[in-house]
Amino acid sequence: MTLVSLQMPVERNETGIELAVAILAQRFGDRFSAAAALREQHGHTTTWLPNQAPDGVVFAESTEEVAEVVKVCAEHKVPVIAFGTGSSLEGHVNAPAGGISVDMSRMNRVLQVNAEDLDCVVEAGVTRKQLNEYLRDTGLFFPIDPGADASLGGMAATRASGTNAVRYGTMKDAVLALTVVMADGTVVHTGGRARKSSAGYDLTRLMVGSEGTLGIITEVTLRLHGIPEAVSGGVCPFPDLESACNTVITTIQCGLPVARIELLDALQIRACNAYSKLDLVETPTLFVEFHGSEAGVREQSELFGEIARDNGGGEFTWATKAEERSRLWSARHDAYWAALGLRPGAKGVSTDVCVPISRLADCIKATMADLNEAGLIGPLVGHVGDGNFHTLVLVDVDNPQEIAAAEGFIERLNWRAIEMGGTCTGEHGVGQGKMKYLTREHGAGLDVMRAVKAALDPDGILNPGKVVPM
Amino acid sequence: MTLVSLQMPVERNETGIELAVAILAQRFGDRFSAAAALREQHGHTTTWLPNQAPDGVVFAESTEEVAEVVKVCAEHKVPVIAFGTGSSLEGHVNAPAGGISVDMSRMNRVLQVNAEDLDCVVEAGVTRKQLNEYLRDTGLFFPIDPGADASLGGMAATRASGTNAVRYGTMKDAVLALTVVMADGTVVHTGGRARKSSAGYDLTRLMVGSEGTLGIITEVTLRLHGIPEAVSGGVCPFPDLESACNTVITTIQCGLPVARIELLDALQIRACNAYSKLDLVETPTLFVEFHGSEAGVREQSELFGEIARDNGGGEFTWATKAEERSRLWSARHDAYWAALGLRPGAKGVSTDVCVPISRLADCIKATMADLNEAGLIGPLVGHVGDGNFHTLVLVDVDNPQEIAAAEGFIERLNWRAIEMGGTCTGEHGVGQGKMKYLTREHGAGLDVMRAVKAALDPDGILNPGKVVPM
Repeated sequence: MTLVSLQMPVERNETGIELAVAILAQRFGDRFSAAAALREQHGHTTTWLPNQAPDGVVFAESTEEVAEVVKVCAEHKVPVIAFGTGSSLEGHVNAPAGGISVDMSRMNRVLQVNAEDLDCVVEAGVTRKQLNEYLRDTGLFFPIDPGADASLGGMAATRASGTNAVRYGTMKDAVLALTVVMADGTVVHTGGRARKSSAGYDLTRLMVGSEGTLGIITEVTLRLHGIPEAVSGGVCPFPDLESACNTVITTIQCGLPVARIELLDALQIRACNAYSKLDLVETPTLFVEFHGSEAGVREQSELFGEIARDNGGGEFTWATKAEERSRLWSARHDAYWAALGLRPGAKGVSTDVCVPISRLADCIKATMADLNEAGLIGPLVGHVGDGNFHTLVLVDVDNPQEIAAAEGFIERLNWRAIEMGGTCTGEHGVGQGKMKYLTREHGAGLDVMRAVKAALDPDGILNPGKVVPM
Repeated sequence: MTLVSLQMPVERNETGIELAVAILAQRFGDRFSAAAALREQHGHTTTWLPNQAPDGVVFAESTEEVAEVVKVCAEHKVPVIAFGTGSSLEGHVNAPAGGISVDMSRMNRVLQVNAEDLDCVVEAGVTRKQLNEYLRDTGLFFPIDPGADASLGGMAATRASGTNAVRYGTMKDAVLALTVVMADGTVVHTGGRARKSSAGYDLTRLMVGSEGTLGIITEVTLRLHGIPEAVSGGVCPFPDLESACNTVITTIQCGLPVARIELLDALQIRACNAYSKLDLVETPTLFVEFHGSEAGVREQSELFGEIARDNGGGEFTWATKAEERSRLWSARHDAYWAALGLRPGAKGVSTDVCVPISRLADCIKATMADLNEAGLIGPLVGHVGDGNFHTLVLVDVDNPQEIAAAEGFIERLNWRAIEMGGTCTGEHGVGQGKMKYLTREHGAGLDVMRAVKAALDPDGILNPGKVVPM
């Protein structure tokens, strides 16, 4: 199918792979595996992109071990692919030319919590939920929350964000420093714990979002935040997507420091009602949350209420208790799974565009019209405070016409976002799926990326076939 | 003197320079100059570092013209150095191997203000004050304010910050997108106007802080902020530096969203009283400012007042009127000039370390003790909410013993900050002056920077002898 066109042809180095597999099997014993099922789990499993399994999986337990694996792979010119939890959506962990997957899940120690500096150091395999669990008694929390309970190394590698980004920023803002294994096995420490620095090139942010193609992130130093004194939130239904979008736009333009502002369309609300046992009115709905002092949160809520009313918003339902809020936000985080439930057997094709906030209503309107015209089903959710939204197109992968329709829709969506001054991916990353959009989005910038890639990974062993077409 | 050791030996390419000068003189007519006085103005002029003038200066008026200049320089392997306002402090604009200075001051157009998206696009020569003047009727402002009225291209190039960074971030956070002329004259657009993106390597943040060594920034897209509904601020005296530092540390740890929190030591207050006609008590003093709603600002001020009192702070003086606040902050911005006034005829040697906030009091205490022991005069100011502070060492440059003492003090200060988990420069950048500290600060990371530099500027024509020792 045309899916193949999404990926670069990458050649397998059979001899090198055979040697590397033998060496690593010997070195890592039962922490190396070439079992088919395990290898498949370490390829792409989340969306309709095909699974391309690596040739072997090493369960690394330290930065030094990752460096050892990379050195073996470097010597034999074999691809090496970092694996966190496998929750990425664009084929990031696939092994189109085979090679070795380095599973980071055993590197799951929280190494430091510097409460007085509002930062911490974790191994790359620590997941966001695990970190927040660990921080429970410190009064601090880590705000960035993609849908999945992803690993923090993976989140750094894809420049992830989530529902809190509108207030707390993305991984670009959260990562202070990294430990990275480079393509020759050298271990590099980027950044530091000072809140700012002008000491040379920003290698930290060069690595954040590089998806394992410039180095393998093994440790992450993260900014933490104090748990707000007060939190309030709730849901507000709207008669249509436009009035909901306009509410978001005004909220952001007013500088209201909303902590979360998420849009779910009527179809997504139906899916969430079914999957998460809610009873929300099935109409476009904003989920919002405010963080601050008691008085600050009250003030923000009132101002937001006025903006919503002015834009035709319906009755606001406040979730005053922590459990109610937690139930709502769990439902929001499970939106992906809920959406899949709308059409059992179908595969979900994720989309992830982001536009300047002034174009949000236009972009969503045009996208939903396009979706209807294409005869496709695709519920919409969005971190709309950032101008970022997703439709999850539900496709019968045995129906070539439907696949073609979905591909056409997705292409048009990405071109539309780029044309509106936006991007083909707000938070999922490029992987294999978004590579073809980068030329139009970056133009000559893509050559600069290519030059950086060639300089830092001259043999192209780090996650080949991803991000930058070489 | 030992100053030479701060710089790399870089060879002059006499033939190339002669050719480039002839070509550019012909091409740019009276917008090219090789007059000695003008060339000297385009070398380093602000501190004790020696002035190394370029061989010619081009006053560029567009990105295309900058690209033309770079192409000529690339062809003849001649250094090309971007020049904003010349306010950098570490020799950034010096021409140790000669070459062409590209003066950006005529590229001073504000190209777009997208009020609804809280962003704008400016040419690199627009200064921060000019931008805020331009924005006056929009309800928006640009918060980043280094001491000088620097150009926004220069501020991006040095990853500048200032007094508002504790709340609004640094240029790393403010820059959304850039237009950059690369070493071969190619024009590249990095980033975009969407608030976030995961579409490939973060070239924007690779260029921010690269000090003209990876490309010449010609246009900058910046995030703007709504002018807060309410602003309050004032000054609070403390019996000693430690109690002032502890107040800062607690304020940050509490998550109090202070907009500005600046420390001036007794000597700096004395200098400001004299230079800016203030009558502050000559004791360590915090200048603070709060932004928010009326109620929010009141709440923040009260909480801060409590923290200051608990730490032994004296009577708080509120500057309730805008003019009073403006007078105080002008004095703060003029601290550098005020300090120079303490010892007429002396040269100021700027320092600029930044440490994790938990180490701030320790670092300042050890530094002031060291300064006294070395018998030097150096008033202290600091963006202490970020853990960033400066002492301006006032040196008689005709006294070799004093120069040696100052050099020793500055070295120890930088090692101390790095050892405390901090950085040798919070906001001034590396230029020539800080190059020698990068090895200890970055270790193997410096090789990665070197590889990036070699990949993007293989002939080393972009601002040679700065940032990364090649």
